[in-house]
Amino acid sequence: MTIRVGVIGTGMIGADHVTRLTTQVVGAAVTAVFDVATERAQQVATTANATARPSWEALVGADDVDAVVIASPGPLHPDQAIACIGAGKPVLCEKPLAATSSEALRVLAAEVAAGRRSVQLGFMRRYDAGYLDVKAAMADGTIGEPLLAHAIHRNATVPDFFRGEMSLTDSLVHEFDIFRWLFDAEVAAVTVLPVKASPLAAEGMRDPQVAILQMAGGEVVTVESFVNCQYGYDVRCEIVGSLGTVSLDNPRTTVVIAGGRRSENVPADWQSRFAPAYTRELQGWIDGLAAGVVGGPSTWDGYAATAIAEAAVTSYAKGERVAVRLVDKPALYTD
Amino acid sequence: MTIRVGVIGTGMIGADHVTRLTTQVVGAAVTAVFDVATERAQQVATTANATARPSWEALVGADDVDAVVIASPGPLHPDQAIACIGAGKPVLCEKPLAATSSEALRVLAAEVAAGRRSVQLGFMRRYDAGYLDVKAAMADGTIGEPLLAHAIHRNATVPDFFRGEMSLTDSLVHEFDIFRWLFDAEVAAVTVLPVKASPLAAEGMRDPQVAILQMAGGEVVTVESFVNCQYGYDVRCEIVGSLGTVSLDNPRTTVVIAGGRRSENVPADWQSRFAPAYTRELQGWIDGLAAGVVGGPSTWDGYAATAIAEAAVTSYAKGERVAVRLVDKPALYTD
Amino acid sequence: MTIRVGVIGTGMIGADHVTRLTTQVVGAAVTAVFDVATERAQQVATTANATARPSWEALVGADDVDAVVIASPGPLHPDQAIACIGAGKPVLCEKPLAATSSEALRVLAAEVAAGRRSVQLGFMRRYDAGYLDVKAAMADGTIGEPLLAHAIHRNATVPDFFRGEMSLTDSLVHEFDIFRWLFDAEVAAVTVLPVKASPLAAEGMRDPQVAILQMAGGEVVTVESFVNCQYGYDVRCEIVGSLGTVSLDNPRTTVVIAGGRRSENVPADWQSRFAPAYTRELQGWIDGLAAGVVGGPSTWDGYAATAIAEAAVTSYAKGERVAVRLVDKPALYTD
Amino acid sequence: MTIRVGVIGTGMIGADHVTRLTTQVVGAAVTAVFDVATERAQQVATTANATARPSWEALVGADDVDAVVIASPGPLHPDQAIACIGAGKPVLCEKPLAATSSEALRVLAAEVAAGRRSVQLGFMRRYDAGYLDVKAAMADGTIGEPLLAHAIHRNATVPDFFRGEMSLTDSLVHEFDIFRWLFDAEVAAVTVLPVKASPLAAEGMRDPQVAILQMAGGEVVTVESFVNCQYGYDVRCEIVGSLGTVSLDNPRTTVVIAGGRRSENVPADWQSRFAPAYTRELQGWIDGLAAGVVGGPSTWDGYAATAIAEAAVTSYAKGERVAVRLVDKPALYTD
Repeated sequence: MTIRVGVIGTGMIGADHVTRLTTQVVGAAVTAVFDVATERAQQVATTANATARPSWEALVGADDVDAVVIASPGPLHPDQAIACIGAGKPVLCEKPLAATSSEALRVLAAEVAAGRRSVQLGFMRRYDAGYLDVKAAMADGTIGEPLLAHAIHRNATVPDFFRGEMSLTDSLVHEFDIFRWLFDAEVAAVTVLPVKASPLAAEGMRDPQVAILQMAGGEVVTVESFVNCQYGYDVRCEIVGSLGTVSLDNPRTTVVIAGGRRSENVPADWQSRFAPAYTRELQGWIDGLAAGVVGGPSTWDGYAATAIAEAAVTSYAKGERVAVRLVDKPALYTD
Repeated sequence: MTIRVGVIGTGMIGADHVTRLTTQVVGAAVTAVFDVATERAQQVATTANATARPSWEALVGADDVDAVVIASPGPLHPDQAIACIGAGKPVLCEKPLAATSSEALRVLAAEVAAGRRSVQLGFMRRYDAGYLDVKAAMADGTIGEPLLAHAIHRNATVPDFFRGEMSLTDSLVHEFDIFRWLFDAEVAAVTVLPVKASPLAAEGMRDPQVAILQMAGGEVVTVESFVNCQYGYDVRCEIVGSLGTVSLDNPRTTVVIAGGRRSENVPADWQSRFAPAYTRELQGWIDGLAAGVVGGPSTWDGYAATAIAEAAVTSYAKGERVAVRLVDKPALYTD
Repeated sequence: MTIRVGVIGTGMIGADHVTRLTTQVVGAAVTAVFDVATERAQQVATTANATARPSWEALVGADDVDAVVIASPGPLHPDQAIACIGAGKPVLCEKPLAATSSEALRVLAAEVAAGRRSVQLGFMRRYDAGYLDVKAAMADGTIGEPLLAHAIHRNATVPDFFRGEMSLTDSLVHEFDIFRWLFDAEVAAVTVLPVKASPLAAEGMRDPQVAILQMAGGEVVTVESFVNCQYGYDVRCEIVGSLGTVSLDNPRTTVVIAGGRRSENVPADWQSRFAPAYTRELQGWIDGLAAGVVGGPSTWDGYAATAIAEAAVTSYAKGERVAVRLVDKPALYTD
Repeated sequence: MTIRVGVIGTGMIGADHVTRLTTQVVGAAVTAVFDVATERAQQVATTANATARPSWEALVGADDVDAVVIASPGPLHPDQAIACIGAGKPVLCEKPLAATSSEALRVLAAEVAAGRRSVQLGFMRRYDAGYLDVKAAMADGTIGEPLLAHAIHRNATVPDFFRGEMSLTDSLVHEFDIFRWLFDAEVAAVTVLPVKASPLAAEGMRDPQVAILQMAGGEVVTVESFVNCQYGYDVRCEIVGSLGTVSLDNPRTTVVIAGGRRSENVPADWQSRFAPAYTRELQGWIDGLAAGVVGGPSTWDGYAATAIAEAAVTSYAKGERVAVRLVDKPALYTD
């Protein structure tokens, strides 16, 4: 059985998903795409033997679309996800779920009303071999009881339109999700600290930044965000337990010795660093759909991450600790 | 277009191939399997929605088989490969190509007579991200002119039937191929050195061993084989050039600090170490077939590796350097 | 010329200094020791061919004592240091300079009144090869402009009398000094965050803790203190600059592969980790005295570290950011 | 008690010894130096408050010289060492003990006739923290029974007068000694293999080279020598045992991340790599003399290393395995 997928949005991440679904994922075929940039949509459609559709609503409603990938701009996600829920079609929705937590709650309400999960959030890190090994070490007693974590999230550079808050909503949102998942706990409060700005950051941009997450169980996570670090894409963390620590490290294949240095490569960008995770995410989604199951990060996870990002933006503006307030968790999202 | 694959041999590696072709390779379907162990063949067939065939000859001749994977015992490979060549069906043949170089030459002759490549050898290391990075560093000037290499090949343990020569024909054959590929040169001579035996090796078995490869261009490779090293599966090498070195290292995802040690995992076995390489090998084979191309390691590569292994066994017995004599290379295998 | 040294305090660190001065430092001889534990003092004196003196005042005033090492309990340091200043004898004073910043200011005032430096503080990390390499990398442009740092300070275990504040005053005081030195800047404010306590920490003890230092220039330092980490003594840091980072790592001599892990040793305790730094500190002090110079960390550095520790204790109690207020820096301590 | 030392030879290594003995070694004073380059000798003498002597014989016989360091050209070592033995003065003799094994045997005979050890050979690696840790891991069961070793010995560049055999007699002699010491066994045979020459090696020079050592107990050591590796000074080894391996690694203090690479420094030269080992060697020698003991690597060790180097030069010329023949070991050198 082949799952026929429609992809909304054919920008960089959407086009990547089309390519992956076509050439690397077993059991899937892209049949439909949509983008307001119609020429681009047509090009991407051609590479996959799919057809471009006149609107995202048409794509969602099409008979030859069994499931939908949402890779459009973030503010459009809620309406599109709610339409898919209404049409009874499973969705892989790129992060963020919504631009605001209240918008996210609209999706949550629709899914709860439908009575079953349709939406998987695109938090692909949960499919990375490294994070899975970290989580395994936290669970199997290797490091004792987890108490504390330190994380860094660095990008070589960011586009000109990137403003300071986007470090929180676009980059750190991945950290917000992953530590919720690793500690299996909500974030209770977040504090964003001002740091001396890099002379290479855009005028007026606060970069790097340090955020402190306080988990509901008392664990603390320090997270550095640095989106103009120049040297590469570097995402690492160390979880500190009562008996030891486990650290996520960058993948390594080779070591070069030359010119007085012994060195390993640092990933150039998130595409290369997390390529296998994206493939596993999509394959897992398709395998689940073939078995009639929607799993992975949920609408609740998307809502929580959005709420934390919202609190982080407030903390960024006010310079103080901000509590994260969540609605009660619907039974649909508890095991 | 889906390539319909028949798999001869449903032992461990054959069954692995069936699983990979079914669940991880895009554009392929396993339609037929054969094994003298008919019950096992039937089980494996069921997992892939394929059918077990009464003989390997029937499988090769079947209309619903476009291409064949040979994963039977080594001595059967030549007849099976020759039959596939005769039937005009592309073959992925597990190593070794043959038990002896004269048997290997039979396959070579058949393929040359047919006038085009049908056979790809199962030297999956050439698809490993690490070896590809090593080869890239050798080519791009990072280490200057490659002169020398050091390699280790260690297995935690081997089955009881493993005798000393099998370290050369079963384990080191991978090293023989990979250094031919990395240096893009034939092996001119091989010397196998006796080393003090591990007390944990089977009675009378020489383990570890050291082999010295002299490449046709004068480069030298020292290779350690140790098939009872106890601690894990450890395959590494360092290529020494005139300006620096590049080393293949084990993949790493995490680092654990506990009990006074900071440590990384060593792979447990070749299945986990080279799983991604096997998948890339099969996907590349299928993608090539879809495009009408047979590439990858050739019958010539299989013949050369067999000839080196043969020389190594002679050196093992005599305790001296043994030259590797190859027939002239047919034009089919030169670019 | 041999510098004749008197050592006040023959506990662990004092006895270590006596041994080092006697067996590893060129140009020094220990002639006198004092401790209220007279038997212990006598034993230590014997190992160095020195004599135990009846009081620390007698030691400071003795004709055969050219210079003094103060290794007594912290609250006694100010009086003893002031006595040395009065006697015109150079002092190596173990940290802390004083138990409170007002006490530290008494020493500062005495030294300023004397018009020249007599006191070097025992911040031995400044003599560690690793920290020196970190500072060099911060200065030579390797990492661009330093902006941020992350540090960890972990001890395997602490004695029973250790309370939570002592993590700040006894362990983190080293961090307070070293980041002032690395960034060549004062600490403007400190925040101590509560973290979920290790189940292996003593009843009521907050361990681990996270402190945030804000430097006068806007740089931020996150420091973890964990004095019951169980696995070893682990002091590391990463300085993040606008172009790259430099990290202090633990010394490494060998790598062991066994039992499925590839591992390095973590230091067992600070004595082994910083042994070479202690020797360089003492040799540098003696070499300076032979040349008529008192250098190294100053009374001002000791005062500043004490003031930061005081602010940290306040932050620990109140749970909020506390500014560090220093008196004006006397000209004696500016270059 | 201060040991008064005379140093013969004030070239690079001799001058280094003078400096170390003067500024880093407790209990020693350099009172006399000699070199045929009298001006240089005078300069070095001045730095140590020593006096230059008119001949090495005068230095050996001087009343104010308790012990002698021989750092003259290798061929002069035997006569000078024998003179010291005759004068009853302990000697630290730089390697090699002699240019030929028959010359080395002259020293051996003189020392045996004297009935007690006077000579310590300058194999400073035995005092390196890394090699000591390797030896400890070989002894304590960590790696099971040692069976095999791999070693590399690389220099960035060598002076113009360096010929191919000097890689064996000057660089690899350290390897010959260290593996005798690590395995506590003699070398039974050595084979030197030709390797493709680096285009950066001097005309006609064979560089790199690979030597195979077969130990008397059956263990095998593969040793690479590469004296024009360009990138730095790199001495490492891995000892392979029946349960695991232990590797000597380069010292590390810091890790730099910049420009897409995460890197450690490689030592620039042997002076920086082995500086602490030289100091420990000298301090241990002086401490031994103060206690009336001569220990460390012996004349026997110097003779054995010379005999292996001699066999290696023969193997280099003939291209075949050459057995190492030693005289019977005098009782003076057995424990």
